[in-house]
Amino acid sequence: MIIVMRQGSSSKEVGDVIKRVQDLGYQVHLSKGVERTIIGIIGDERPLTVQPLERLSGVEAVVPILKPFKLASRDFHPENSVITIKGTEIGTDEIIVMAGPCSVESWEQLQETAHVVKRAGAKVLRGGAFKPRTSPYSFQGLGEEGLQMLRAAGDETGLLIVTEVMAPKQVDLVCHYADILQIGARNMQNYNLLRAAGDSGHPVLLKRGFSSTVEELLMAAEYILSKGDYQVMLCERGIRTFDTKYTRNTLDINAVPVLKQLSHLPVIVDPSHATGKWDLVTAAARAGVAAGADGLLIEVHPEPDKALSDGQQSLRPENFVELMAQIRRVAEAVDRTVTEPEVERVAVSAL
Amino acid sequence: MIIVMRQGSSSKEVGDVIKRVQDLGYQVHLSKGVERTIIGIIGDERPLTVQPLERLSGVEAVVPILKPFKLASRDFHPENSVITIKGTEIGTDEIIVMAGPCSVESWEQLQETAHVVKRAGAKVLRGGAFKPRTSPYSFQGLGEEGLQMLRAAGDETGLLIVTEVMAPKQVDLVCHYADILQIGARNMQNYNLLRAAGDSGHPVLLKRGFSSTVEELLMAAEYILSKGDYQVMLCERGIRTFDTKYTRNTLDINAVPVLKQLSHLPVIVDPSHATGKWDLVTAAARAGVAAGADGLLIEVHPEPDKALSDGQQSLRPENFVELMAQIRRVAEAVDRTVTEPEVERVAVSAL
Amino acid sequence: MIIVMRQGSSSKEVGDVIKRVQDLGYQVHLSKGVERTIIGIIGDERPLTVQPLERLSGVEAVVPILKPFKLASRDFHPENSVITIKGTEIGTDEIIVMAGPCSVESWEQLQETAHVVKRAGAKVLRGGAFKPRTSPYSFQGLGEEGLQMLRAAGDETGLLIVTEVMAPKQVDLVCHYADILQIGARNMQNYNLLRAAGDSGHPVLLKRGFSSTVEELLMAAEYILSKGDYQVMLCERGIRTFDTKYTRNTLDINAVPVLKQLSHLPVIVDPSHATGKWDLVTAAARAGVAAGADGLLIEVHPEPDKALSDGQQSLRPENFVELMAQIRRVAEAVDRTVTEPEVERVAVSAL
Amino acid sequence: MIIVMRQGSSSKEVGDVIKRVQDLGYQVHLSKGVERTIIGIIGDERPLTVQPLERLSGVEAVVPILKPFKLASRDFHPENSVITIKGTEIGTDEIIVMAGPCSVESWEQLQETAHVVKRAGAKVLRGGAFKPRTSPYSFQGLGEEGLQMLRAAGDETGLLIVTEVMAPKQVDLVCHYADILQIGARNMQNYNLLRAAGDSGHPVLLKRGFSSTVEELLMAAEYILSKGDYQVMLCERGIRTFDTKYTRNTLDINAVPVLKQLSHLPVIVDPSHATGKWDLVTAAARAGVAAGADGLLIEVHPEPDKALSDGQQSLRPENFVELMAQIRRVAEAVDRTVTEPEVERVAVSAL
Repeated sequence: MIIVMRQGSSSKEVGDVIKRVQDLGYQVHLSKGVERTIIGIIGDERPLTVQPLERLSGVEAVVPILKPFKLASRDFHPENSVITIKGTEIGTDEIIVMAGPCSVESWEQLQETAHVVKRAGAKVLRGGAFKPRTSPYSFQGLGEEGLQMLRAAGDETGLLIVTEVMAPKQVDLVCHYADILQIGARNMQNYNLLRAAGDSGHPVLLKRGFSSTVEELLMAAEYILSKGDYQVMLCERGIRTFDTKYTRNTLDINAVPVLKQLSHLPVIVDPSHATGKWDLVTAAARAGVAAGADGLLIEVHPEPDKALSDGQQSLRPENFVELMAQIRRVAEAVDRTVTEPEVERVAVSAL
Repeated sequence: MIIVMRQGSSSKEVGDVIKRVQDLGYQVHLSKGVERTIIGIIGDERPLTVQPLERLSGVEAVVPILKPFKLASRDFHPENSVITIKGTEIGTDEIIVMAGPCSVESWEQLQETAHVVKRAGAKVLRGGAFKPRTSPYSFQGLGEEGLQMLRAAGDETGLLIVTEVMAPKQVDLVCHYADILQIGARNMQNYNLLRAAGDSGHPVLLKRGFSSTVEELLMAAEYILSKGDYQVMLCERGIRTFDTKYTRNTLDINAVPVLKQLSHLPVIVDPSHATGKWDLVTAAARAGVAAGADGLLIEVHPEPDKALSDGQQSLRPENFVELMAQIRRVAEAVDRTVTEPEVERVAVSAL
Repeated sequence: MIIVMRQGSSSKEVGDVIKRVQDLGYQVHLSKGVERTIIGIIGDERPLTVQPLERLSGVEAVVPILKPFKLASRDFHPENSVITIKGTEIGTDEIIVMAGPCSVESWEQLQETAHVVKRAGAKVLRGGAFKPRTSPYSFQGLGEEGLQMLRAAGDETGLLIVTEVMAPKQVDLVCHYADILQIGARNMQNYNLLRAAGDSGHPVLLKRGFSSTVEELLMAAEYILSKGDYQVMLCERGIRTFDTKYTRNTLDINAVPVLKQLSHLPVIVDPSHATGKWDLVTAAARAGVAAGADGLLIEVHPEPDKALSDGQQSLRPENFVELMAQIRRVAEAVDRTVTEPEVERVAVSAL
Repeated sequence: MIIVMRQGSSSKEVGDVIKRVQDLGYQVHLSKGVERTIIGIIGDERPLTVQPLERLSGVEAVVPILKPFKLASRDFHPENSVITIKGTEIGTDEIIVMAGPCSVESWEQLQETAHVVKRAGAKVLRGGAFKPRTSPYSFQGLGEEGLQMLRAAGDETGLLIVTEVMAPKQVDLVCHYADILQIGARNMQNYNLLRAAGDSGHPVLLKRGFSSTVEELLMAAEYILSKGDYQVMLCERGIRTFDTKYTRNTLDINAVPVLKQLSHLPVIVDPSHATGKWDLVTAAARAGVAAGADGLLIEVHPEPDKALSDGQQSLRPENFVELMAQIRRVAEAVDRTVTEPEVERVAVSAL
């Protein structure tokens, strides 16, 4: 940490700042420039960031040098983390596709979608049972009944299950049914929920808040990791910018290589929310894979024009099959793989 | 609601959209323009917004006409709402000042601050017992012990108490000690918490999310109002923009008159978070009052350079006294009032 | 300037960076911490910012310590700058109001508006002759004919004239007719124009780009100042954020005290563009004055519903008279003044 | 266009609005809903957008239905536009790579870079002779001397030349030396420059302003197209968002498929500016190709750590060769091509 003193600060002010820092157990390094005096602090600065050193007399700025996250950082864990759930690995050369409806609406809808996405090569079934909705007048999800349907669809198809948990007290319930807890964008800084998820030890898919920085996403992951739960996946799902006319959000594609540089955790891209329009999802998914994502999260619905939520960004089954074919080609171009569709496997084995 | 059909959409597509809307129980109004066909929908469109009509074949855009919030709107309740708590009215010509430390740190710190702000003219004591912190390594608050101190300080001084509640299961506990529940910016779209707060019937200070639109703030208020709890105050506390070099947030001063136009609920401005720098707080507070705020929320600490949180934006007692003197003059210039300081009252009665 | 080396950087890398900096004529200060080695650079770092030191092997980050602007800074010129134009001073305790139509449309429209704003207490007449319009199909201004009308209206009323200049080759022409050159938000980083304006030596009203930081605004001012033209006024006119539903821009009210802290130049607030809605202009103007602005820029039109541009944000004459009355009261509350309206002056002298 | 009347607006107000619209030569369509009366306007609404209909009494909102751009739209020109310059086609299945230094610094630097990028498969040489710089103290470019070097390097290698033009009066000069005029992000709404570029009839690479919407980019293109110059390329080069810690800008990858849907003009992606960090450029370039870009604009410098501008985002020659190899594979995965490197061609012909 560097403390920059104001132009014209007095020796007493400089002395007081040094004394305060030393009292907190740190060594300092004084450097007098032509225009500014600078005090360097030696040691792990993270505990210091809570100290309001900017309020000390004569201080112009406090400049942190170290990154505020530790367990999530690649410095701490240089190799890619691989998360293994019931034999499926996330974070390897294989790009894992998680697909399914925005909301679980009925057993028929879920079962049909599950088989569709499984056949096309997905490994995880997504679907919401507890739904955060902007309006209190919108459909709020089926609750535990939806969780039961998800589990049944997972068992029937062999897909893993990921679903959102919205409150600390739901964590145990959701862990009972789901293989992966999803923490939604609106809850990325719901610290009680992060702690509860971390305590569960369950794999967590952590979605970036729509106005959270990459660093805040990593700090939210740090909450979970600091509880000893290392099975965390980071999900870029689009950010809020000034341009919302033709897309719902802006896919921050830069965040994919940035997160891979800064952290060892797997990075998942959600092109459905990041665009908000079904006819942009496939292009965004291709971009996500090309940029280095370890997985994709895709909304699929058998009848999007009748969906109770997110219909405008959900793919029809045939669009999803086409998306899978396209990302498979892009994956190969970046030395990655995507599971082959079952139908083709059948066709080949029939020879 | 208006449905705009794509250029060149077929009669069948137009007919299918009309049929779908009629099946949902609405009348339609067809208008064929030179370049586009438009279908107007007659009736309360709010339940329709969950329908993914954009996915119907031939539809280019769906344009809502009505505002999505209802109970929070001035159309619904043309007069200003006044919230009365133990005899103190919020939403009248008197500007209510809520002040105190970011976090409750100790009884001495809280007691001293409470007396300072009371004497200067504040009506409500603020202070955090449960603290949402970006880093899991930062001070997380004193919990229930902090709540007890707040209650004691309120009882000793006659100040009302406002403090943050972070999870649904804390609502009962916080209601037990506090006069006003604060829902923080990061939880503005924590719908389980909004519902729990609404169920409590307690007064609520709802802070705008740092990247939430004015409309989303009103929709969050709608969650609470729809539970029958009408004692909601809206708090503008700064938004996140591209410029974060010299301030922590950007005070959206336009939001004050906009909220007063759109809604009947009292509007509170938090210049401490909206600037993030103590030496900008007074100017921002004056602006808030000049723009039409019904109250202010201000961080005050006896020793900001030793505060466990938000020290850089907390006022010293003497700065707070000066702020109160300045906003009192601005309040008068816009035909509002701020409670006189006790010391002056004493001085006058001594004559 | 501080250069932070990556964790694990080699002695050779550190040595190479030091050598490079020394070759550029600077002294260095080496500090080895527990996790990072830091190289401090002693001397005026501004010329160094063009050096891509981040590309040197082993460098993690380059952290500037000094502000990049110099002539615009309060460090350089501690007192407020006062700009005197034909006897009118800008930057004193008197708040200067500049008012008039968005575009000059006709002599009748301009003459009427000029007299209205003069009587109400304005000191400067604004009006556009060259108009930057988003659409090539919109009214583009009257050009030199508009400038002639502005000059005539100024001469008739005694008001100073401010009008926009859009290209370097227009600078001489606009200087011939106007007292103050306005550089619009879209041209804030049109460096050829900034240089041409600076070369003219004319007073300049420099509007902040709608997505420019405060620092970039000061750097744009630096372009003009570095040509020896010190008569620069900074104008906050609203920034672009994620929320554009109920206002055209977001008035960055924090920028007013921030600019007053960082710079000695007068700060003008434009509540017309900063809100984009006529019925929010007066509240925003009051906030601007309360926050410390030295002047206001207001759009006034005799018939806003027939204006060729910006009608939705222009005040009618009677609204402007009311705005002036309101800001006069707020100005007094912050120990500033606004010129009295002429009608009152007449009334007093009639006694 | 739809005019929404306020709740409770009177018949007279509705009648006045209808009369005004009819006086302007339009037919109207009246629709009385339960809560709101709506007036639909029949005909080409574009000329109407300059009318301040929102200021008419009783009007709540004016909702445009048609897009404001016409010549740039795919409705107007359904097929992709192909721009042919000296036999090179832009806008076909071949992805065109434009590469070179940020600034032309010397003949040696430019010549070396030109040969490097030519051999690696680039078709166009980029390089700045007039440089827009945030600081007046930074290197401002070599001017006409730089243009001469660019032309010479183009003639020597057979590469086309693209370079920035900053002012209307430079247009003729730049046209004399360059094959493509670049209009920079800061000048995207410099309308005098857009008109001058359009008048030249020269091919134009139009960069999106860093805070401009996709619609504003298309409106800027409309300025050029409306002058009869149809050889316009649109360039996404990153936008400004709230997160600037680890990247200089945010690549708006969604804009690529959005622009391809809305417009017939070729879309170029600039991953150098869109990331601002050389070690993110290749990932962003892959994403751009995967998303559907028709070309890339890449900064390459023989010695980035000595570059006079943008060194931190410039690729070394060997990094550029690697980038070309990677995007060639991604291009094939989306059924596009990138020119093969010359060295390989030589190798093959040597057999």
